[in-house]
Amino acid sequence: MTLETPIGADTPAPESATTETGEHGAETPLLESYIAGAWRVPDATRTTLLQDASTGAPVARMGGAPDLAAAVEHARTMGQASLGDLPFHRRALILKALAQALTAAKDDLYAISAQTGATARDSVVDVDGGIGVLFTYASKGRRELPNATTLVDGAPEGLARDGSFGGQHLWSRLPGVAFQVNAFNFPVWGMLEKFAPAFLAGVPTIVKPATPTAYLTEAAVRVMVDSGLLPEGSLQLAIGSAHGFLDLLDAGDAVGFTGSASTGRMLRRDDAVVVRGVSLTTEADSVNAAILGSDAVRGTAEFDAFVASVVTEMTAKAGQKCTAIRRVLVPEASVDDVIEAVRDRLAAKVVLGDPRAEGVTMGPLASLAQRDEVRARVMDLVAGGGEIVVGSLDEPEVAGAGAGEGAFVSPILLRFRDASAPAVHDIEAFGPVASVLGYRDLDDAVRLANLGGGSLVATVCSADPDVVGTLVAGISPWHGRVLVLDGSVARTSTGHGSPVPHLVHGGPGRAGGGEELGGMRSVLHYMRRTALQGSPEVLTRLTGQWRAGATTNDGIHPFRKPLARLRVGDRVVSPPRSVALDDIEHFAEFTGDTFYAHMDEEAAAANPFFPGRVAHGYLLLSWAAGLFVDPDPGPVLANYGLENLRFVTPVSPGDEVRVTLTAKQISPRESEEYGEVRWDAVLVNQRDEVVATYDVLTLVAKE
Amino acid sequence: MTLETPIGADTPAPESATTETGEHGAETPLLESYIAGAWRVPDATRTTLLQDASTGAPVARMGGAPDLAAAVEHARTMGQASLGDLPFHRRALILKALAQALTAAKDDLYAISAQTGATARDSVVDVDGGIGVLFTYASKGRRELPNATTLVDGAPEGLARDGSFGGQHLWSRLPGVAFQVNAFNFPVWGMLEKFAPAFLAGVPTIVKPATPTAYLTEAAVRVMVDSGLLPEGSLQLAIGSAHGFLDLLDAGDAVGFTGSASTGRMLRRDDAVVVRGVSLTTEADSVNAAILGSDAVRGTAEFDAFVASVVTEMTAKAGQKCTAIRRVLVPEASVDDVIEAVRDRLAAKVVLGDPRAEGVTMGPLASLAQRDEVRARVMDLVAGGGEIVVGSLDEPEVAGAGAGEGAFVSPILLRFRDASAPAVHDIEAFGPVASVLGYRDLDDAVRLANLGGGSLVATVCSADPDVVGTLVAGISPWHGRVLVLDGSVARTSTGHGSPVPHLVHGGPGRAGGGEELGGMRSVLHYMRRTALQGSPEVLTRLTGQWRAGATTNDGIHPFRKPLARLRVGDRVVSPPRSVALDDIEHFAEFTGDTFYAHMDEEAAAANPFFPGRVAHGYLLLSWAAGLFVDPDPGPVLANYGLENLRFVTPVSPGDEVRVTLTAKQISPRESEEYGEVRWDAVLVNQRDEVVATYDVLTLVAKE
Repeated sequence: MTLETPIGADTPAPESATTETGEHGAETPLLESYIAGAWRVPDATRTTLLQDASTGAPVARMGGAPDLAAAVEHARTMGQASLGDLPFHRRALILKALAQALTAAKDDLYAISAQTGATARDSVVDVDGGIGVLFTYASKGRRELPNATTLVDGAPEGLARDGSFGGQHLWSRLPGVAFQVNAFNFPVWGMLEKFAPAFLAGVPTIVKPATPTAYLTEAAVRVMVDSGLLPEGSLQLAIGSAHGFLDLLDAGDAVGFTGSASTGRMLRRDDAVVVRGVSLTTEADSVNAAILGSDAVRGTAEFDAFVASVVTEMTAKAGQKCTAIRRVLVPEASVDDVIEAVRDRLAAKVVLGDPRAEGVTMGPLASLAQRDEVRARVMDLVAGGGEIVVGSLDEPEVAGAGAGEGAFVSPILLRFRDASAPAVHDIEAFGPVASVLGYRDLDDAVRLANLGGGSLVATVCSADPDVVGTLVAGISPWHGRVLVLDGSVARTSTGHGSPVPHLVHGGPGRAGGGEELGGMRSVLHYMRRTALQGSPEVLTRLTGQWRAGATTNDGIHPFRKPLARLRVGDRVVSPPRSVALDDIEHFAEFTGDTFYAHMDEEAAAANPFFPGRVAHGYLLLSWAAGLFVDPDPGPVLANYGLENLRFVTPVSPGDEVRVTLTAKQISPRESEEYGEVRWDAVLVNQRDEVVATYDVLTLVAKE
Repeated sequence: MTLETPIGADTPAPESATTETGEHGAETPLLESYIAGAWRVPDATRTTLLQDASTGAPVARMGGAPDLAAAVEHARTMGQASLGDLPFHRRALILKALAQALTAAKDDLYAISAQTGATARDSVVDVDGGIGVLFTYASKGRRELPNATTLVDGAPEGLARDGSFGGQHLWSRLPGVAFQVNAFNFPVWGMLEKFAPAFLAGVPTIVKPATPTAYLTEAAVRVMVDSGLLPEGSLQLAIGSAHGFLDLLDAGDAVGFTGSASTGRMLRRDDAVVVRGVSLTTEADSVNAAILGSDAVRGTAEFDAFVASVVTEMTAKAGQKCTAIRRVLVPEASVDDVIEAVRDRLAAKVVLGDPRAEGVTMGPLASLAQRDEVRARVMDLVAGGGEIVVGSLDEPEVAGAGAGEGAFVSPILLRFRDASAPAVHDIEAFGPVASVLGYRDLDDAVRLANLGGGSLVATVCSADPDVVGTLVAGISPWHGRVLVLDGSVARTSTGHGSPVPHLVHGGPGRAGGGEELGGMRSVLHYMRRTALQGSPEVLTRLTGQWRAGATTNDGIHPFRKPLARLRVGDRVVSPPRSVALDDIEHFAEFTGDTFYAHMDEEAAAANPFFPGRVAHGYLLLSWAAGLFVDPDPGPVLANYGLENLRFVTPVSPGDEVRVTLTAKQISPRESEEYGEVRWDAVLVNQRDEVVATYDVLTLVAKE
């Protein structure tokens, strides 16, 4: 790894493939960067040739370094400004439209993807998987975020007895740029899984794709740019050397890096990170394990599911996945069975060749350099105690014409008789390679899995709750994701090797210590949490969320105000209503809720929480609605829910209750004629003691 | 900073004060470490003398390095085991008891604290502040965490259409040790604010206090150890050089560091962090700003509050606070007014001297080395363009006998005519020192505040909502905490310089990029989030929280089961009940809720969400309670609340509803004869369409 290519062992040093212009032929397309609103033709004095993984045919040329300083400047000014104008829901809707634009271009992207060595199934993971991330963030963004530009975190904190001073955490977006460095193996998904959360947070992205497959990323970005959907400066593409990019960044910026552990370490030591405080998330290679439970012997559904998963992970993307299974941990007694079953399934299912050829199920590696790298790592594994028990390093038989120049490697399974051999827990051969290890007991399995020093994912395969419990508890602190595989999920599992946008992708220790995806969790990586302190009035204004003690407005009934006129703090205070024993009995009869606390004075008084018979909580809620409702048709369309209800003080016959309802948060929907309004409801008795507090959720028309 | 003292510029190199044994006199107590369950007398061949900050009198001696390897080993084995047996609420109750033990010993701690130069008011911040952190975590831990050892994060994620496969994030504690390196300025609070969240998370702590005030930390730890409350291995104290401590740690461990930015950087570059993935939180020095709004001219309540805050922050702990105000940003027109007002208030309020002397309001710095350090930094500020406008570097007049050997510095206010001078935004004189800068307009104020490169805290002082809005939005991304000061909070504000346990303490960039405190947020720093995937059955078992699709048990009515017999999945399925128009009209009349959607067929049908007149949501809730309740006295004591209610499908006259109630989460209380049970409630109609979903919260007796 040289300083000129600070972006992943996945990326071969461009020099290795660089030749003088002309040798490739000017007819091979020159990849362009998209910077500051225009496609930029690079300097082509020296270019790097990118070749079809199966045939070696020229695909594209990469030229000189892009103007990263211009990209960073454009992101910080134009990108920040254009995204800052959009609330979360607008950004989410743009993500949805981008997903639709990419879907429409899928056939073209698949054809280009095949040049990287991807089979159709591999392209589903990369292309459709990437589009799926956009759809998921589009949907979650509108469901789980308010339609605002900042995000309240947690409950208000009271810091003065009289309520005059308090605190509130608030997330606001980073003021800079998201610089995203991707690996070669998922040129589309890898870009989109980082772009989507940054975009939703409101932070402009600069994408730096890895060299060997940059042409596919470029094609996808062209689709997005051509759609006309991207706010100016929100997405830029930097193809070519990213030398010195960290020097341009500071604490307002974030770097998302996927690539080798060694490059990740170099970035983590850089002054930009250590001194200036650039936020850095790394997702590095990881030697992931799959553990077969002792109950899952040959003949069980779990054994079959386990073997299928191992074969899938060895062959999908030709094993070029940071989440692939590298260590196959099985009970010592099952080692031979597993090796045999994997061998049989590989023989039955896997046809190696040019992915465009009929019947091919596994393609080549992304480049000849990667093939040589994988062969070298397999030899390291052999030197470290591994024995090849399936496949070989010989030139494999391949299907498809012209595949003789391709980067093909056959699936290789190794066996380590010494399960503790350091090599197997440390060396990642980034291809169709896995190793089988026998474990003695569950403690030994946990110990071996954790010898990976922190992994992205592990599979635990067992139908025995005790086995699952012990293994999951033991390995969880060292793993970002743990999949429990059993017969009941064998068909519906999303799979060991597939990060899903809903769940965190990343792992501790060697895996880089980062977290990506996981729904809104990764949006927060592009935001900063600040603790605000001040009066209720100030906190209400800064957060857009009303809190007790801030100004209220008791004029016109707030249910008569559409969103356009409603303001937080608009309020209705009801008259009191007194509760008679008859009311309680009547309600009990009508609802069937004859719980003794409402019906039996003696039994109720014996309950530690009640002074005697008390009103039903649901009676009080129902009456409260009757007290605050404004019955005629108007802008309030429906009460669609209720949250955080707490009954605080019991209400006895003879007590009075009244309710105060205050508009707390107003969130218009982008694509509807209405929006959500959250109301703060407080029910008190005749002594002003709080009887109940809750939030009422309503849909309110805009006009 | 040498490698031998990798723990903060706050810590003078021990060598500087080291002398041969005997010279100090063996009568000066030798500080002991508490490691592996016993107090350890260090090697005393060479010792460091710790002196009274006011008088120079010997206080204690520090000997050779503690056995850190033994401490780490003990924490990982005994500490992990003993804490792992305790659920969150048990740990919280121990924190409360520890707080009570320290409260009982407060007089002794105050006397020792005075030797560090702390006035009584300073000791309130350090000693009472530290005890307050324990009380807050004790209380929040029981209120905001379940009584369990792991913590479910976020909502369940469905990952298969048929519900057979899903995901859930779960926090589990780190499997290692929390190594906590503290600064000299808050020997009690600094220890407890890191210890409390680690303890609550279940991670054993090793405390490394800073040299000059280690004797006070030792005294506090003795109180805690002597209380007999600490689970074995949960707290150890390492006094003396911590050389090489990072070499002992890996990705299962966490380091919390408070100290200089330069030492923080050294730690962040260490292989332990970069290669092995030790979790590191740093809280470093920070050049914090206070900004006076343009509206807050002399004569306003805001001006007075601002000046009072500046004087407090200059003099409390003699300005030895990483949160102190260093940069006083005021409108150019107010510079002279502010300087004059600060000068007057310092003259009126501040008496410098031995804190044990009558009338003293500001003590010495912690050591002569610190005094020399502060003087040197003030001279750097002067060289960088500052002019001393209040105070001086001359030997100050001090109150109290024997104060001639003390580390006294008078409060010093500087003025920078060039507000952009790099020195003022970069140099932290860690004493009673602040600098006044004039700003031109609000954008300029934001720019200047952010020139600090990331700070722990800033104050914005204004009563003008627009000024507050602009300043807070502009500086939030660069600040961990922002306090808005106005006349309404002048008396009740907790103060610029005081982190509160409820809110995050830490800041981006130069401030170290860490987060401490903030309630449960800092507990999570000692835990790891894992994404679990599997069947509903598996996820229910792993999280202790029932989810749809997992096993249910329809035997005996679950309201008849006390906590000792109740299990998640225990369920009651009600018979159906049909809803007549009469019921709706009756309910409307009884409650007063005559909203048109219930009363007027035509108007209801015109509403976008309703087919015509529909039943009240509160009617359905009330009936559901009637359908699932078991009325006779039994273990279910009360329904204390309800959460996450969503009305999904409207119910028309003629429809039927029935409810299913399933025990979802069971959380016994430690100090009560009952606990909380959360029930999953689902209301469906006669077509099995979901009408409403919610969680019912109840209190249930243990036996």
